[in-house]
Order: sequence, then structure tokens, then C-alpha cells
Amino acid sequence: MTTDLVAAVDIGGTKIAGALVNGAGELLHRLQRPTRARESADSVLRSLTDVLTPLTEHPLWSRVGAVGVGSAGPVDARNGTVSPVNIAAWRDFPLVEGIRKTTGDLPVALVGDGAAIAAGEHWMGAARGRANALCMVVSTGVGGGLILDGRLRPGPTGNAGHIGHISVDFNGELCPCGGRGCVERIASGTNIARYALASGWRPAEPEGDLTAAGVALAARAGDPVALEAYERAARALAAGIAATATLVELETVVIGGGVSQSGEVLFGPLRRALGEYATLPFVSDLEVVPAELGTDAGLVGAAAVCWSDSDTFLSLGAAGN
Amino acid sequence: MTTDLVAAVDIGGTKIAGALVNGAGELLHRLQRPTRARESADSVLRSLTDVLTPLTEHPLWSRVGAVGVGSAGPVDARNGTVSPVNIAAWRDFPLVEGIRKTTGDLPVALVGDGAAIAAGEHWMGAARGRANALCMVVSTGVGGGLILDGRLRPGPTGNAGHIGHISVDFNGELCPCGGRGCVERIASGTNIARYALASGWRPAEPEGDLTAAGVALAARAGDPVALEAYERAARALAAGIAATATLVELETVVIGGGVSQSGEVLFGPLRRALGEYATLPFVSDLEVVPAELGTDAGLVGAAAVCWSDSDTFLSLGAAGN
Repeated sequence: MTTDLVAAVDIGGTKIAGALVNGAGELLHRLQRPTRARESADSVLRSLTDVLTPLTEHPLWSRVGAVGVGSAGPVDARNGTVSPVNIAAWRDFPLVEGIRKTTGDLPVALVGDGAAIAAGEHWMGAARGRANALCMVVSTGVGGGLILDGRLRPGPTGNAGHIGHISVDFNGELCPCGGRGCVERIASGTNIARYALASGWRPAEPEGDLTAAGVALAARAGDPVALEAYERAARALAAGIAATATLVELETVVIGGGVSQSGEVLFGPLRRALGEYATLPFVSDLEVVPAELGTDAGLVGAAAVCWSDSDTFLSLGAAGN
Repeated sequence: MTTDLVAAVDIGGTKIAGALVNGAGELLHRLQRPTRARESADSVLRSLTDVLTPLTEHPLWSRVGAVGVGSAGPVDARNGTVSPVNIAAWRDFPLVEGIRKTTGDLPVALVGDGAAIAAGEHWMGAARGRANALCMVVSTGVGGGLILDGRLRPGPTGNAGHIGHISVDFNGELCPCGGRGCVERIASGTNIARYALASGWRPAEPEGDLTAAGVALAARAGDPVALEAYERAARALAAGIAATATLVELETVVIGGGVSQSGEVLFGPLRRALGEYATLPFVSDLEVVPAELGTDAGLVGAAAVCWSDSDTFLSLGAAGN
């Protein structure tokens, strides 16, 4: 029997999505459920099972050779467990074991959501054909994953590329992660809005948007405080991106997520600031491009992981006999 | 004919060293010359040739299958050129071509000095058996190289692991590299001494040591300004190391170079500060150990690169027919 499909799962703090994905990256059957992230560990697992069960009952299921999972992190791919910051009841939660209760003996590849998105953008998006790329999400939080030497490098535990929690301000503000001056603490949407509001910015309309999208709107209209909030975030992102490029050598940085939707308000100062931080000759040609995959990046990426992870790939090949 | 040796070359701003190295990492024949770094490009090349020619005339030369080169950076391994910051006349200098004038058609593997040291410590030193390690030098400057998934990852141009020039203070002081708040700008020996002196520290003896070693001596004697200078450097190093670990997942950090000779004056606050910056579960077990190879780390590493670089290894295998 041919096993030419994989099941992909994307576990976030808000929703859990699943799909059957073919070798062209197409989602043949997609569904999602609310995560119920504030409920018990079993309750969140039920949300996941409610996504997986209909997939296993689908007529195409017999062609599925592996399960790829991208989860909010941190994850521990070695032990198959996850401890997502935004799912409080899951601490060292045996996710792979929980999935196998529904999917049986299929190989399961687990990576963090940043790695999954990188795998997706490399397979079907803006990092296609790039040997060395950082793919980031700048949204409520800041995350990322790395493509090195032509393939996903999730690291031993699946968390590599976690750019949101590197410090670019070692004497800076404490971050909820316990660190100090983290990229996310300065450049996430939440923190762009926080900084703008603390600096006296208010939306033009009394009932206006108080989020980073509202700040972007004001920045486009020329509001100096809003512009400065994006400038500061862009500089922190640039310092973090330049650090990553200096450490691993990158040709491309792909940026997605809600804050990147603000377009030139972010990308303009970001490209300028990169010129300031990425100064060594081997990093100065760094390309910065918007992500191409939308909200399904995590699902496409979770599928891609099945093919880019050599262990799973081998298992998948074996299952295809 | 058996080709069971390699020629190793270590090019620094002060000296150029060369050796024949066997598969056990032993330097069978070693020599060095002053770099003459302030003279013309040809003059520096003559220093190199003065090291290489006696090697090619050695009775063991017929057993040499490849040449491994670690050079002060930046280097460009793709083009075989180097532009060392501290050798002014060498800009895009065709180093591999220059070497081949003396060594003939042997394959030449070129990496930056940080990558060479990492390869050396991984082969024969403190990173032996480690799958994921950062090997650093904290000396006049700060450099490093990366072992990922069990092998050297020099990056496409040979400069990966360049931790001295990542920013940990994005609004900080300008660095001579053009960046801002670089690890080297805060934590190199030169900058530890600069900071201590600017903060009012003076050696106890009128003719005392004004370098980082003198500051370390004073710190051991309890001088608060000297202690604060090392504390600050250690925090910057910790932020940079934690960033690297968060980006690529490390199990070990190996630290060598002159400043690391100060022992607990540096390693004590460094380990404490790592607890502050390396907070996520997948980086919190990071091991920090002193380098084991001494001044020959670059030579041993340049030899190791011949075996860890798969292209050269294949060529070397072919040459061994």
C-alpha cells in the first residue's frame, strides 16, 4: 500500500489544527478546534483528539505514513513532551504518547512551532531554494526556526531558532521568560503597543485600536511616537537577526506574523537598522522578505518536517513498502 | 602511496604557524614566522611561504594529502580569499591561490580562526564527544566556532560562530566593526582593561600591569572596580552565549584565550550570569568548561578541518589512492 500522505498537526494557544497533506504541500482535509488552553491537561488533549479522530476516520487515512507535529514551545523532541508557555496545564506533557493513542504506530515527528514554520516556508514559501535561512514570526510573541545547509535544523530538542528569547539589551528589562532584554520583550506586537502607550501614544479615535496594528496605522499617518515605537522594535529585531546571521551565516530572513502585516512601517526601519548591525562582509548581503504562507504555515511545516527529518523520513520510507 | 598526514596552517596577526599533523592530532614538525602584518600583501605572503616551504621540503611531505588553513577573519571560504581585520594589506586576498603556489595541487580547506579552534577542541580538546558546542576565545578579541550535530559547521564562508560581533546592547557603544554593543566591545581583554581604567581603576604598583591580566589580579585581591569590570564582561559573554544556545541548542561552551586564564574571576560571574540569561528549559543545562588545547589549538584545528570538511575529506580520500 502506498503511504504518500502525512497527517499534520499545529498546536497553538488559541487553536489546534490538523490536516492530511500530500507531497505537493496541499491540505486535503483540514479541521481545527479551540485549544481550551486554560483547562486541564486532559481537556486540552481532548481538543487535540477531536482534531485527530476525524482525520483517522477519513477515507485517505490508509495512505498516511507519518504524523508531523508543530507545537507551541518549549518542546522536548527527545522525550516527546511539551511545556507550552501558553498552555499552563501541559508541563512535560507526553504529547507524542497522547497522539499515538489516536494514530497508532505511525512515526511521529515533533518540533517547536518556530521550526515548523521554517520547514513550511522552506518547502513551499519564501525560503524555497535557500540553503541558510531564518524564518520568524513577529506577532503576540516572536519565534523562529532555522534552515541550515539546505534543511531544517530543529536542534536536539526541536527548539532551535528561538530568536524571541535572545537578549539584545543585556542590562534591559526583565522578560517573563526570566531573561533580560529579549527580542520579544521589545519587538512583539504586545510590546510595541505597550511601549507606544507608555510613551503617551493614543489612537486618533477614542474607541480606536490599542494594539500594534493601531500603532502601525498611526505610524503611517506620521505620528512621531508611533513611528518611534516601530523604529525601536525594528532595531531590536535587526540586532537579533544580525546576531543570528553572524552566528550561523544566513542568506535570507523570512518574516511573517501579525506585526509583519504592517508592511513598510516595520520593514523600512528594519532594513535600515540591519545595515547598522549586520556589518561584517559575510552578513551584509542578508535578504529580508515577507513570509508567503499564511495561517496554514504551521500545518504545511509540520508536514514538511516529516520529510526533512531524516529519522522520520526513513521510517516513512519503510512504512511505504 | 599512503597520504596519512595533513599540513596545517594558522594565520594570525602576530605569527603564522605551520605543521605536519598526523591522524592522532600530533604536530610532527612545527614552525612559525612573524606575520609582518603591517607590511605589504606580498610581504605577508612571503612570511607564509617561509613557513610552507620547509614543510614541503620535509621527508614526510610525500605523505601529506591535504592542507588545512585557519585564518584571522573574515575569510571567504567559497572564493578562497581572506580580509583579516588585523592584516591591513590583505583585502580579498587570494590566500588559497597563494598557498597552492607552494603546495601544488593538494586540496586546501580554509576556515576562519574561530572555526579552526572549534574543530581542534572538538577533535582533541574540551569539546570531544560533544554533539553541539560553541568554542570561544576571549583574548584581545572575542571569536568562536560552532560544532553542530557532531561536526564543525563553519558556514558557507567559514565565519560561523563569530560571537564577538553579535550585539548584546543594541543601544550600546559603537564597535570598530561598525556594529553597536558587540560582545567583543564589552568583554575582550582590551575592553575589560579600558572599562576598568575609565572607571578609575589603577594597578596597586605604579608600574603595574594595565591589561586585563592586571585587572584580574586586582579583582582577586578584592578591588571593587576590577571586580565590576569582570562582572560586566561576564554578563555580556553570558548574554551572547545564552543567545547562541537559544538559537542553535548547545550542550557545551568551551572558553579559551588569555582572558579565560583569569580563571574564577571570569568563570564565577559567567556561570552565575548564565543562570540569568539562559532560562529556557532547553538551554538551562549548558556546561561551561575551559579550553584544553593551548596555543596550538589553531594548528590542531586546521588539521581537523581537513577531516571534518566532507569535500576536502573526499578529495583527501581520492588523493590517497
